[in-house]
Amino acid sequence: MFDQNPIFIPGPTNVPDRLRRVMDMQTRDHRSPAFGAMLPELFDGVRKVFNTKDAAIITFPASGTGGWEAAVSNTLSPGDTVLIARYGMFSHRWIDLCQRHGLNVEIIECAWGSGAPADLFAERLKADKGHEIKAVLVTHNETATGVRSDIGAVRRGMDSADHPAMLMVDCVSSLASMPFDFDGWGVDVAITGSQKGFMLFTGMCIVAVSQKALEHRKTAKLPRTFFSFDDMLAANGAGGYPYTPPIQLMFGLQESLKMLFEEGLENVYARHFRLAEGVRRAVDAWGLRLCAESADLYSDTVSAIYVPKGFDSNALTQHAYDAYDISFGVGLGEMNGRAFRIGHLGALTDVTMLSGLATIEMAMADLDYPIELGSGVAAAQQFYRTTAGASLAKAA
Amino acid sequence: MFDQNPIFIPGPTNVPDRLRRVMDMQTRDHRSPAFGAMLPELFDGVRKVFNTKDAAIITFPASGTGGWEAAVSNTLSPGDTVLIARYGMFSHRWIDLCQRHGLNVEIIECAWGSGAPADLFAERLKADKGHEIKAVLVTHNETATGVRSDIGAVRRGMDSADHPAMLMVDCVSSLASMPFDFDGWGVDVAITGSQKGFMLFTGMCIVAVSQKALEHRKTAKLPRTFFSFDDMLAANGAGGYPYTPPIQLMFGLQESLKMLFEEGLENVYARHFRLAEGVRRAVDAWGLRLCAESADLYSDTVSAIYVPKGFDSNALTQHAYDAYDISFGVGLGEMNGRAFRIGHLGALTDVTMLSGLATIEMAMADLDYPIELGSGVAAAQQFYRTTAGASLAKAA
Amino acid sequence: MFDQNPIFIPGPTNVPDRLRRVMDMQTRDHRSPAFGAMLPELFDGVRKVFNTKDAAIITFPASGTGGWEAAVSNTLSPGDTVLIARYGMFSHRWIDLCQRHGLNVEIIECAWGSGAPADLFAERLKADKGHEIKAVLVTHNETATGVRSDIGAVRRGMDSADHPAMLMVDCVSSLASMPFDFDGWGVDVAITGSQKGFMLFTGMCIVAVSQKALEHRKTAKLPRTFFSFDDMLAANGAGGYPYTPPIQLMFGLQESLKMLFEEGLENVYARHFRLAEGVRRAVDAWGLRLCAESADLYSDTVSAIYVPKGFDSNALTQHAYDAYDISFGVGLGEMNGRAFRIGHLGALTDVTMLSGLATIEMAMADLDYPIELGSGVAAAQQFYRTTAGASLAKAA
Amino acid sequence: MFDQNPIFIPGPTNVPDRLRRVMDMQTRDHRSPAFGAMLPELFDGVRKVFNTKDAAIITFPASGTGGWEAAVSNTLSPGDTVLIARYGMFSHRWIDLCQRHGLNVEIIECAWGSGAPADLFAERLKADKGHEIKAVLVTHNETATGVRSDIGAVRRGMDSADHPAMLMVDCVSSLASMPFDFDGWGVDVAITGSQKGFMLFTGMCIVAVSQKALEHRKTAKLPRTFFSFDDMLAANGAGGYPYTPPIQLMFGLQESLKMLFEEGLENVYARHFRLAEGVRRAVDAWGLRLCAESADLYSDTVSAIYVPKGFDSNALTQHAYDAYDISFGVGLGEMNGRAFRIGHLGALTDVTMLSGLATIEMAMADLDYPIELGSGVAAAQQFYRTTAGASLAKAA
Repeated sequence: MFDQNPIFIPGPTNVPDRLRRVMDMQTRDHRSPAFGAMLPELFDGVRKVFNTKDAAIITFPASGTGGWEAAVSNTLSPGDTVLIARYGMFSHRWIDLCQRHGLNVEIIECAWGSGAPADLFAERLKADKGHEIKAVLVTHNETATGVRSDIGAVRRGMDSADHPAMLMVDCVSSLASMPFDFDGWGVDVAITGSQKGFMLFTGMCIVAVSQKALEHRKTAKLPRTFFSFDDMLAANGAGGYPYTPPIQLMFGLQESLKMLFEEGLENVYARHFRLAEGVRRAVDAWGLRLCAESADLYSDTVSAIYVPKGFDSNALTQHAYDAYDISFGVGLGEMNGRAFRIGHLGALTDVTMLSGLATIEMAMADLDYPIELGSGVAAAQQFYRTTAGASLAKAA
Repeated sequence: MFDQNPIFIPGPTNVPDRLRRVMDMQTRDHRSPAFGAMLPELFDGVRKVFNTKDAAIITFPASGTGGWEAAVSNTLSPGDTVLIARYGMFSHRWIDLCQRHGLNVEIIECAWGSGAPADLFAERLKADKGHEIKAVLVTHNETATGVRSDIGAVRRGMDSADHPAMLMVDCVSSLASMPFDFDGWGVDVAITGSQKGFMLFTGMCIVAVSQKALEHRKTAKLPRTFFSFDDMLAANGAGGYPYTPPIQLMFGLQESLKMLFEEGLENVYARHFRLAEGVRRAVDAWGLRLCAESADLYSDTVSAIYVPKGFDSNALTQHAYDAYDISFGVGLGEMNGRAFRIGHLGALTDVTMLSGLATIEMAMADLDYPIELGSGVAAAQQFYRTTAGASLAKAA
Repeated sequence: MFDQNPIFIPGPTNVPDRLRRVMDMQTRDHRSPAFGAMLPELFDGVRKVFNTKDAAIITFPASGTGGWEAAVSNTLSPGDTVLIARYGMFSHRWIDLCQRHGLNVEIIECAWGSGAPADLFAERLKADKGHEIKAVLVTHNETATGVRSDIGAVRRGMDSADHPAMLMVDCVSSLASMPFDFDGWGVDVAITGSQKGFMLFTGMCIVAVSQKALEHRKTAKLPRTFFSFDDMLAANGAGGYPYTPPIQLMFGLQESLKMLFEEGLENVYARHFRLAEGVRRAVDAWGLRLCAESADLYSDTVSAIYVPKGFDSNALTQHAYDAYDISFGVGLGEMNGRAFRIGHLGALTDVTMLSGLATIEMAMADLDYPIELGSGVAAAQQFYRTTAGASLAKAA
Repeated sequence: MFDQNPIFIPGPTNVPDRLRRVMDMQTRDHRSPAFGAMLPELFDGVRKVFNTKDAAIITFPASGTGGWEAAVSNTLSPGDTVLIARYGMFSHRWIDLCQRHGLNVEIIECAWGSGAPADLFAERLKADKGHEIKAVLVTHNETATGVRSDIGAVRRGMDSADHPAMLMVDCVSSLASMPFDFDGWGVDVAITGSQKGFMLFTGMCIVAVSQKALEHRKTAKLPRTFFSFDDMLAANGAGGYPYTPPIQLMFGLQESLKMLFEEGLENVYARHFRLAEGVRRAVDAWGLRLCAESADLYSDTVSAIYVPKGFDSNALTQHAYDAYDISFGVGLGEMNGRAFRIGHLGALTDVTMLSGLATIEMAMADLDYPIELGSGVAAAQQFYRTTAGASLAKAA
């Protein structure tokens, strides 16, 4: 792929030069004082993005899947019951992980395209008089369907049930791109990765853990060493790491935080909304439909788009790749063949976003989709140009 | 400017990562054997791009302007007469340089938007029975107006006059993007730079010199040291450089040649034509007009586009920069305020080209240009998608 | 730390520019065909370094510790017995990991500075008539003491006991620097990382797994998802990855293999021996003593060196860092305060190695060690210069 | 050459990662407001290094040789007389340039190894009652012999003769490494380059011009366009450049200035003295002799060292390159074969300097030089360790 064509997958994102430069650092000794000295400020910065005052911030050299494993293995024991809804590929995978770790997983099956069923959660929790359910697990942004769930509603449901279960949230593809309120929503464990809103290379998962969840580790019996919160907290506290740290990613995260704070988190969120809304206008102009069932569920980091009946979304993404050297997200799981995805998170601008819309239009036209060339672009242009200025003013 | 927005100025170009990587090299000793060893193959590669068998290839750490100076100061003496036509900013500047170096400059004034007047050159040369005219100077691609001149026609005119003048060609913004035929056109000195078709950083001019022109240096009396062909040829011949060479650019040039040859020069030219033609279709769809007077003059590396009456092209490029963080070429000289330019040379693709078209459309709409959003994009899309495949197949 | 001072810790290593350039790549879609297409050759190359014909090669975005966890969790069940000797920090940590995963760990306590006790292993295995012991775990190169163990001897011991236990080897700090013979030694699981002999950034563990060990995963009951061999093999087989892959490291590994094969593995090993031997000559000239008990145990990737009685090795490494801006390995575990370490693995040359020796000499002199300035350097110089040529001839 | 072995030529220097990162920037539009906005602060910073309040700072995309040409062609006319002493390769080349530009060059021949003859200059100027001599040209640091001349003494001589000639100084290999006092010494034109004390890639010459010298350009008749002060000052004043600027180097210079000011210029000079003095102690320990005739002439950026009688310095540098993959400076001009050079300017530390000394010792021993291995290293170590701390404290 030509090295200046942007990618439009929902992460890993296009990496800004500024972050590539920082990550391209020569090896430095992770046992030197300089390493330990950077940690407190780094974690403080991450806390700001999670919107938490005193959650512990824990990093592992792993992907987001590792974060899921860390979340459950540090807080739960084999046989523990967790409650989770399946409404996309990533909730599905987390369910699978829990089952393979010997948890008793109560699954609420939902339509793909819907979000976390706060009411059903509440109902189930109310029925759980014995507090067998130890944790509620929610995927904040379902990358497969482009659905953002209402975590605040989940919390209100839990509170209405007066249930002590922990609330664990996968915010891999939402954090640092859409608002997150760890403290306000009463989240106990939140999991994200380096390669999404932080715009870094893949390879580090970042977990925020409430004091309540930290307490659970004292009784949690699932085995863990690589993903041990205890080891990591002890080592970080002494200015170290329990094994070789991914220092390039840690220095990258430090710079990523600087970029986010320079732009301003509110502006970052506004930029993501604006770019996403332009994409949605284009989808509408094409006469296509989003997988997300309703507007309140629209994700600002990825749009999953149904192809018209009789078309194969895999043929579309493959053709875009072959003919135009550009990557869009394929349809995952139930959406395989039925939807393609446009990632719009991380380091993107009006300019780059429009290149993606213009190119997928060509690809659709090539495959005889009933769309008009330029129509989606024009809809996005109209939205972008009438909303330009404010949010761009502070873009890096 | 956001570091992934492409630029659409007619050079320096967007630099591919592959070339940035090579240029980002640690200092190596230019007096070591390794340096000298790379030169012959490097010059052979450059000769292929100039399309010459045995012209001398000479590089200087300088911009293209330095190449102009090298061309005249190594081959001419104060008071010598040169013939040149003024039809844009860069021919204008070369004229100025010649005058300041004490040459007698015969200028044929042409409309900006026209090309090299082969007939008028021939006429003037026929009248020059005493062969006072020592050189004819031609700007192959007038970057200010987006005009490519017919150098072959100039040569035929010179031949018809049976005139021994040297033919010097500024191909700064054409070489490695549009066909060039040094030997076929009987060029004596051709000048280009690192930052255009070679897609490198600015800082090296590259000059091809015929044996005939080399002979002239024996009698040429203009002073020269930094730009001395003699010094450079002698030093290069011994595996060295007469002063500190810009080794990052020389290794960059080596890799750039590899990229060009991997894609194939014919494919490189076809890609430039294709991208340029898409831009021209967009211009047409907007109802705007190119500065280039006729289709045979259209440049495949830059399009200069008149803004409608009553509009100021500087306001347009400034607005595009302020509102969308993107650079287009401003109108230069006579075109200042009257035209803007879209550079389409170097490392560009359908994907990136469309982002430029979509963005300038927004900027025009913002300033109440009578254009329809998406119209230019659609025209370009239609052209690109019906011509995709062949040329993209071999893109890097 | 000044960015051109080399580091002398036993990994992560100094990263060659050539590998930094490759790792500094823009994000590419890991679901595109290009990703899957690179895997077979990549794994073939890794197999060559492990010296195996048909072991499965499995990578995880994790550190070497993650590799230990993957090794045991994919092949063993809670309560299974493993046999391991403790003779340094890294064997100690692997023991700890096994215990925390509910294994029954039989530990042979050895002196730090000794190597794997092949005879004691054999004796214990012979006594295990019921074949309760499922695996023997060995640290090939004990980074804390600079001891390389004889894995071939361990295998011979196991064979003499005719015992079916798996043989698992931690070769994190030995692979690609010292000879390794996966097939010849009958290794079942071998674990290494990206940041040592492969000279890459930290963040990927690389595991080789025999067919016999792969069989064990069918019955192994330890929970695993992130580190699942099954998931990884299935995904890789289909040209994918079970979650987001660390593509920068994977492309880096591809290039690292090229570098290793260009130099030739035998030359790589010879270079490590030669640099290490120079360090040992220096140690001898200083009148100091290695932690490794005998010459057959000397590691070619790291030397752990006792400080004289009455001195504190931590003060030495700290002073070297403060006064000369250079990192040496601190003493770990039992060696803390008693020994410092000089890492000599990865991308090092005579030139850089001598800078480390000269600097630690200054640091020792500053702290009134009874050593003569220049003495260690001279001993190393004498060795290097009389052995130069052959091995350097093919250095990258 | 292995990409982490430092080079020990007297420039171009080892480039710090920090500066490589900045220079590795994507193309940005040099006609955008951002470019012009950076210039005033950039030039102010450069003025600080030259130690001048109001000299004009002028840059060209060229090497230092281009700076020499700019200096004379903007201030002098054909036939003008200049006074210059020849005491090394670089004064020799400047003489040659002046002669080729039609100047009347009065040459004072001095021994190579001596410095600028302030007394002889004064004498000659006193005799020049008609003020025919328009300029005195001095090489501050003669890179070929490792000699730093006393520019203050030259100025005092000129003042004693009450002569109005301009004072032009080549400080290519001294500026930003040794103290320079443009205003205090009454310098009129000073010339340096990007690739020495500024630690950048080769490709930009930087010239400081006094108001007096600027006046001269009104009458100076030597032709100039590429190197025109007028064009550059006018363009820079309007926030532009007369042709395509080397923006990577200009942003690099901006960062280089930051680095220099963070360390503090006095500390930069002290560091260069200290590293150089260590080299001189080593030379003394080897029983060798510097080309510089006396201690007051010792350069802190390069040491030229005579090889013993009967030895060939070219064989030494070639052997060091072949056997140890490391570059030292060859002997130039009169010193060819008789001396080798150790560059010690720019981004170097105790650690890297010692690697150079240790390696050249090996190379000398290999060729049977009568030196003791480790002796030079020990002498340098002794000096470095007793002077460490203060100067290192602020090293980047």
